[in-house]
Amino acid sequence: MGFRLTPQDTSFYDLFAESAKYLVAGAEQLTAVLGTDPEERKAVVKRMYEIEHEADEATHAIIRRVNQSFITPFDREDIHDLAVAIDDCVDHMDAAADLIGLYRIDDMLPRVSKQVEVLCRMAELTAEAMPRLRSMKDLSTYWIEINRLENQADKAYRRLLAELFNGPDPDAIMVMKHKEVIDELEAAADAFEKVAHKVESIAVKES
Amino acid sequence: MGFRLTPQDTSFYDLFAESAKYLVAGAEQLTAVLGTDPEERKAVVKRMYEIEHEADEATHAIIRRVNQSFITPFDREDIHDLAVAIDDCVDHMDAAADLIGLYRIDDMLPRVSKQVEVLCRMAELTAEAMPRLRSMKDLSTYWIEINRLENQADKAYRRLLAELFNGPDPDAIMVMKHKEVIDELEAAADAFEKVAHKVESIAVKES
Amino acid sequence: MGFRLTPQDTSFYDLFAESAKYLVAGAEQLTAVLGTDPEERKAVVKRMYEIEHEADEATHAIIRRVNQSFITPFDREDIHDLAVAIDDCVDHMDAAADLIGLYRIDDMLPRVSKQVEVLCRMAELTAEAMPRLRSMKDLSTYWIEINRLENQADKAYRRLLAELFNGPDPDAIMVMKHKEVIDELEAAADAFEKVAHKVESIAVKES
Repeated sequence: MGFRLTPQDTSFYDLFAESAKYLVAGAEQLTAVLGTDPEERKAVVKRMYEIEHEADEATHAIIRRVNQSFITPFDREDIHDLAVAIDDCVDHMDAAADLIGLYRIDDMLPRVSKQVEVLCRMAELTAEAMPRLRSMKDLSTYWIEINRLENQADKAYRRLLAELFNGPDPDAIMVMKHKEVIDELEAAADAFEKVAHKVESIAVKES
Repeated sequence: MGFRLTPQDTSFYDLFAESAKYLVAGAEQLTAVLGTDPEERKAVVKRMYEIEHEADEATHAIIRRVNQSFITPFDREDIHDLAVAIDDCVDHMDAAADLIGLYRIDDMLPRVSKQVEVLCRMAELTAEAMPRLRSMKDLSTYWIEINRLENQADKAYRRLLAELFNGPDPDAIMVMKHKEVIDELEAAADAFEKVAHKVESIAVKES
Repeated sequence: MGFRLTPQDTSFYDLFAESAKYLVAGAEQLTAVLGTDPEERKAVVKRMYEIEHEADEATHAIIRRVNQSFITPFDREDIHDLAVAIDDCVDHMDAAADLIGLYRIDDMLPRVSKQVEVLCRMAELTAEAMPRLRSMKDLSTYWIEINRLENQADKAYRRLLAELFNGPDPDAIMVMKHKEVIDELEAAADAFEKVAHKVESIAVKES
């Protein structure tokens, strides 16, 4: 088949690829927040806030485009939901960075870096998968791997909590602060899984 | 075009407007809970519980109507989801009021009133937007403003937690009680945003 | 009407009935975790983990089948979402059992058994309702009862928290551990309600 009679607005794929770049940028700042001393942390948190803001703009650009397009490559509602789901991932990573700054936590548990490493991997996988929405091919490897990572993150999360609570003479307020950050990182992992579920659900419908 | 051959059941709009009134009533009771001394609080919590119950009835009335209607003004599934989303807002506001009573909290942090003020504004905006579902016009101002308020609420929420945790010699149990209430109010703000997302998604689909 | 020209893949109903069996099995293990002494608990938690894994497999079997089927008994997307929603219930029950083991909690509050009893009832009701997806009949009794149980669970949950926090000289770390478990059980109840909402929404659409 040489051509389509109804030209589809293919730029949606570009917009999703663009939006997913903020996932990778956000995960990088999150890694940076853990690595910097409290003095320099403020600048990293500020950069993360800017990324969150730019990601918001990218999300609204997709939704505006949906409103203006006569024909869309897949369901308008699914485009909307996927854009919102990607934005949620950035929101949770921004929230985690903000909390680390606000609570003036200087000694994050080493296992927290593992949580952030998983988020970095999830961000890369998601950004790599977005261009494949065009062909709807080779997407199952993406969502299966995200599900696997999320299950692993869930288990690691509960072990992290046990380590936090079962320590010798734990300070309750300190435990609570750490738990807030750890919970926000876990929520980010859940949000990445929701993106994968949404992509899976779109692929199932369009196949 | 002078008339429709297929009369739509327009009363759905009235049912949603009715349902959204409980949002405003709930937000008012929440304000009242913070303002009353513990003695009179019981009566306010009881009134909130009645509002929650009436809101449940309103939600079920919408779902029953969907089941009985041959033609609906927009997707049956979307009507269902929107009704459930509105109900969730009332549920979280009821839960917050209930917790303030149960925990016998006498000295809520002043910033908590700010959280409740944002919820009141969100409730008003949502109630005002519902009648505009009929024309699907002028709804973007509503959801943009809700998103803005929710982003603001998110930031305020994290600063509130920092204030709670960073205080001089905080009592862990007291911190936890306050946090439960603050979390429930934050969940209410999230629930209002979900209503706005649903309205946005319906408008995108129907446009 | 004697036959269909387009044979529907009726085995979806069998797959959902199969998937829902893990809900009952999971709820049983959860009851067992509370009943066993810490010594034997490890074996129960391990059995729960296996159930969670088998439930995952059952979910993926449904999704694979959706991908391979030309005709499905209801919307492909709804089949996908319902499968994921059922899986979420098992995940939360597994998480609760895992936490009880990890935190080495020996003296769970008696009211926690009440939470688990409600989950057992929800699991049974859901498993009983799944075969009725075939006819889409008599489902409203199911979702109304689940909603009622969930409302009841919500109230009981908040009273449980008040009991936990208002006790004489509570140990903050112990309170936090118990709260984690109680929250996970409450999340399981919410997940059961989401399954019921999904079934309700499918029935509304297909009716």
